[in-house]
Amino acid sequence: MRFFEDIDVGDRQELGAYTFAAEDIKTFARRFDPQAFHLDEEAAKRSHFGALCASGWQTACEWMRLLIDSRLREDEEARRRGKPVPRRGPAIGMRDLKWLKPVYVGDTVSYAYEVIGKRTSKSRPDRGLLTVRGSGVNQRDEMVISFETTAFLERRKQT
Amino acid sequence: MRFFEDIDVGDRQELGAYTFAAEDIKTFARRFDPQAFHLDEEAAKRSHFGALCASGWQTACEWMRLLIDSRLREDEEARRRGKPVPRRGPAIGMRDLKWLKPVYVGDTVSYAYEVIGKRTSKSRPDRGLLTVRGSGVNQRDEMVISFETTAFLERRKQT
Repeated sequence: MRFFEDIDVGDRQELGAYTFAAEDIKTFARRFDPQAFHLDEEAAKRSHFGALCASGWQTACEWMRLLIDSRLREDEEARRRGKPVPRRGPAIGMRDLKWLKPVYVGDTVSYAYEVIGKRTSKSRPDRGLLTVRGSGVNQRDEMVISFETTAFLERRKQT
Repeated sequence: MRFFEDIDVGDRQELGAYTFAAEDIKTFARRFDPQAFHLDEEAAKRSHFGALCASGWQTACEWMRLLIDSRLREDEEARRRGKPVPRRGPAIGMRDLKWLKPVYVGDTVSYAYEVIGKRTSKSRPDRGLLTVRGSGVNQRDEMVISFETTAFLERRKQT
């Protein structure tokens, strides 16, 4: 499957879409971001957002969930075909996360990432570093979130 | 209470501590980051982390929760004393989020922020922009997360 060498700068991966239901927005907000405009329709109407909308952190976390789902499907497919599954290191950080637009109840956000950089690791020659730009676009084609993140990915065995 | 004018660069606010229980780590991971080392003790032992550890996104989201709890307490105190409660705008982004160390089961992370910049808004003279550095430090005094974020805060009425 997709090792470091199989991925090029400019590659784009669609991760799927997530529709934000009121109950999901509130469940997340009660646990992590209990501001009135994420919890209560009436309070949200009176806020600068004008209607109930999702925590920016949830908008980011749904990207993560779809990323992992996509990887798990890819790995499963590799195993089914008897191909090797690359080892991945954790993401080491995130840069320039922007919450560009509110995500309201019923909005469907399509998530993706694009590879914007790759380099090999000096300390770990078996791994490379990939930098990607993650994004989410709503059903009106407005970008609601974007950020950059870097993670390790296994290189093919050097022969 | 604390309007834009009441806050200085260098001000530091302790937000409180959160202890990461295995069940909380798994609950978050099942919903947002279903990687084996966040879900299963045995799989985590065999991973590069060596033991079950929290999603980096959860480590960030717990900061948010404690931030909001701290604000709600502050606002409640203001109302109780009959003082005005400042209006706040949403965070518009986040820069340089770093996951510096894994957060393992039983780790207690103490969260805080420090004000590193403030400026008035040209388009919204009733609001100022505050930039803060958020952080989380574990019980061994190791920083596990740091990032910068910027948000709006109401200014006192200009007289």
